[in-house]
Amino acid sequence: MPKIINKKTILQTRLFKLESLDINFGNDNLRNFEIISGSGAEAVMIIPVNGNNIIFIKEYAAAIDDYSITLPKGRIDKGENILDAANRELQEEIGFKSNNLEHIYTLDLAPGYINHKTHIVLAKDLIPSKLEGDEPEELEVISCKKNNLSKFIKQQNNIDSRAISCMYLLEKFTF
Amino acid sequence: MPKIINKKTILQTRLFKLESLDINFGNDNLRNFEIISGSGAEAVMIIPVNGNNIIFIKEYAAAIDDYSITLPKGRIDKGENILDAANRELQEEIGFKSNNLEHIYTLDLAPGYINHKTHIVLAKDLIPSKLEGDEPEELEVISCKKNNLSKFIKQQNNIDSRAISCMYLLEKFTF
Repeated sequence: MPKIINKKTILQTRLFKLESLDINFGNDNLRNFEIISGSGAEAVMIIPVNGNNIIFIKEYAAAIDDYSITLPKGRIDKGENILDAANRELQEEIGFKSNNLEHIYTLDLAPGYINHKTHIVLAKDLIPSKLEGDEPEELEVISCKKNNLSKFIKQQNNIDSRAISCMYLLEKFTF
Repeated sequence: MPKIINKKTILQTRLFKLESLDINFGNDNLRNFEIISGSGAEAVMIIPVNGNNIIFIKEYAAAIDDYSITLPKGRIDKGENILDAANRELQEEIGFKSNNLEHIYTLDLAPGYINHKTHIVLAKDLIPSKLEGDEPEELEVISCKKNNLSKFIKQQNNIDSRAISCMYLLEKFTF
């Protein structure tokens, strides 16, 4: 196993920590890596199953300056557990809550250079319930029939890769 | 459409650019975002199809200080096109090349806060061919039968989310 022999924080901002790591791969084979961590908070992404439909959102994605298709998601607050965070985000982003939540997987984004975990939660038996979120604008909610998902994915631009992973997890891990 | 009214580079390192954006969502509803861009280079990830097998790699992922399961991938060099980069990475990382490469999709990682594109290339008709890469240690190559993929994914830890997305694209976009 490679060994981190030196670790230095280059910069810490509100959202990100950028670090420089010197890693020894054995026999003095040293490499320097730059890695990004989030603020320390993990994230939750929810697959909302409403009868025969999966509910997506369309939201402005600042890093690409364009709208993006994704699933309800957000940061887990301090002291909050995964399922509570999922139920809060559901209510804030699509106006539903669920009494049937299951944590089915934990995704790594791109673990070579980003240290960030997203917990995937399947939400069934949805009932209307709205909480005020902190979104800068109203999110567009898009329902897609389960048997039309792959066609829907093909037709969209700028889909969060985690949402595509969720389609695989939904199909292979839950039915 | 929200409008970026102010953009400032906080830090530029070898690999990352960290920016601060002030965005107007209309009616003077202003928000500040921090976003990460890569070095400007895009990436390629390859789905190598070898008969009835898909070829994965296991490599050390610095950001999580652990081994990770992923597909062959890497940065597109300056002046290199997507398919040439895919064929180079295939030879460097798994010792094969392909004369049957197809660019099937482009993934956004997490477009709300990371501006990074990964081009997904399907590689068929593999033939042995080795190029020297820049990996700090030999990569472990793992073949998995197509009809065993979901079981394989379930059994692994630390899978790059883009590789899971690729399993969905492989199944829905290519067969």
